[in-house]
Amino acid sequence: MKTEFEIIEKFFNKKAIKAHKGIGDDAALIEKDGKTFWAISTDMLNEKVHFMPNTDPYKLGWKAMAVNVSDLLAMGASPMFALLSIALPKSNSDWLKKFSKGFFECGKKYNVELIGGDTTKGPLTINVTILGDVNKKNILLRSNAKIGDDIWVTGELGLAALGLKIIQKKINAPSTITKKSINALEKPKPNMLIIEKIKPFCNAAIDVSDGFISDLNHILIASKVGAHIFLKDVPMNKWIRKTEKEDLALYGGDDYQTILTAPKKMRSKIEKLLQKNNLELSRVGIITKDKKLHLSNNDKTIKLKKGYIHFEKN
Amino acid sequence: MKTEFEIIEKFFNKKAIKAHKGIGDDAALIEKDGKTFWAISTDMLNEKVHFMPNTDPYKLGWKAMAVNVSDLLAMGASPMFALLSIALPKSNSDWLKKFSKGFFECGKKYNVELIGGDTTKGPLTINVTILGDVNKKNILLRSNAKIGDDIWVTGELGLAALGLKIIQKKINAPSTITKKSINALEKPKPNMLIIEKIKPFCNAAIDVSDGFISDLNHILIASKVGAHIFLKDVPMNKWIRKTEKEDLALYGGDDYQTILTAPKKMRSKIEKLLQKNNLELSRVGIITKDKKLHLSNNDKTIKLKKGYIHFEKN
Repeated sequence: MKTEFEIIEKFFNKKAIKAHKGIGDDAALIEKDGKTFWAISTDMLNEKVHFMPNTDPYKLGWKAMAVNVSDLLAMGASPMFALLSIALPKSNSDWLKKFSKGFFECGKKYNVELIGGDTTKGPLTINVTILGDVNKKNILLRSNAKIGDDIWVTGELGLAALGLKIIQKKINAPSTITKKSINALEKPKPNMLIIEKIKPFCNAAIDVSDGFISDLNHILIASKVGAHIFLKDVPMNKWIRKTEKEDLALYGGDDYQTILTAPKKMRSKIEKLLQKNNLELSRVGIITKDKKLHLSNNDKTIKLKKGYIHFEKN
Repeated sequence: MKTEFEIIEKFFNKKAIKAHKGIGDDAALIEKDGKTFWAISTDMLNEKVHFMPNTDPYKLGWKAMAVNVSDLLAMGASPMFALLSIALPKSNSDWLKKFSKGFFECGKKYNVELIGGDTTKGPLTINVTILGDVNKKNILLRSNAKIGDDIWVTGELGLAALGLKIIQKKINAPSTITKKSINALEKPKPNMLIIEKIKPFCNAAIDVSDGFISDLNHILIASKVGAHIFLKDVPMNKWIRKTEKEDLALYGGDDYQTILTAPKKMRSKIEKLLQKNNLELSRVGIITKDKKLHLSNNDKTIKLKKGYIHFEKN
């Protein structure tokens, strides 16, 4: 199958004229008022593709909301409204009750109201459209990373990918790690507070859905820059590092953490905010002029996996 | 299966606080600026439910856009932006090329730009979210029909339902009618021009997707009023009337025409506009205080089909 990127590029990527920002970022931007945009994004989740047939409906409801929240945060927007379309093979009150509980609980955590939707019959499919407002000064575009910017990442990476491997019985991990990583996979919690605090000092952002290296690449391509990443600074669980499973943090998807770039001169301001608010944010590298993605560990260059070399399609 | 209405009512209909209008109309309304709202609606189309497996992708693309345009027009809004999510079992360039052609051609007709979306693998599913702006003075809510209002309908009713019956080989019709009705089913064309012209004089509106009687009922319930409809004034193709298939016009779905209500004192203004612009709009009845839907033909009351009696769920 063609990649999503190729399909969009070939058939659907027409330049938006009336919108401030159309296809090509975590969300589109349309006018609200003189100072503000509405940011809008949509995500479809399909059984057997994005989730297993017997996924706990509560967690599925949570995740359907959370992945959309993550998209808006990565634009610098504050999530506000959602529309939910849901196709179900047959009416199932118990399933719907649990699904809606997860969906609304996650919505409550991120201040999102359901304002519309559609319910229909069909193979289990969930589509969420989310809207939030963003001050025009705070927009975080993929294309706005600047040479010399620090690269920051929220939370820890690789946990969701570890959770999936554990469920698939491809990895065995201690019980505490097992629990934590499956929870990261099934109930992602985008770090809204951190982004709210630091977005005024940042230039660019993207959420980590495909994997850290892959998503960072989207910023580099859109901004026509490169990056140098220091593996020792990439935030990951100690057990992942100790057992040399760093690839989970670099290439694993579904983290719904956020990569942000900010000018070096903002570093001390950001660090003060982190200390004051006890926020989990790591500085993992810098944006470079050289249009390559360079990964190193204690001065030793680490070869990137095939398909993750800058300017190749991934 | 529970009806869509019951599912929404039971699990998803929480009162919107931050939105001007949440669930329960053709679209939700959120703030744009002091004078204007954004109207937003979403619709999911599933194979075997909303369209047959071998539907021409061009027409499917057209219809996916058109049914959403119809929702916005029925709010008094001017369509502007769309987001498209599409799940495909496998990559199919030919199919996507034709689908996107239909989608964009319809978008062009109604001035709608694609600004975002999602493409994924899964059973063929299409979800469109549409946005348009509406002057706060021009909002057409289902709940705003007033006693004494004239009831108006755009275009002709029943053609799409006739088209479906012909395709299903349940009805035989002359070739011109066959062609016209299948076209009405597969390539609906909401009457934007009429609505643009007359919306400043109207109180309430809804689009005809489930069927004229069923959708009119939604207005009556939301507005806590009744209606008297004169069958002879309900616009339908001569052949449908001649062959006594009026039920197609009353109960058939998929017309994507619009029902509007307007104060009686606006009648002459509306009629002048119709003559001047050669618009297809019919006055079919009046809104009554008595909370019943009354249908008559030359002073003879016509019994409504079961399930279409006011205040019963349909």
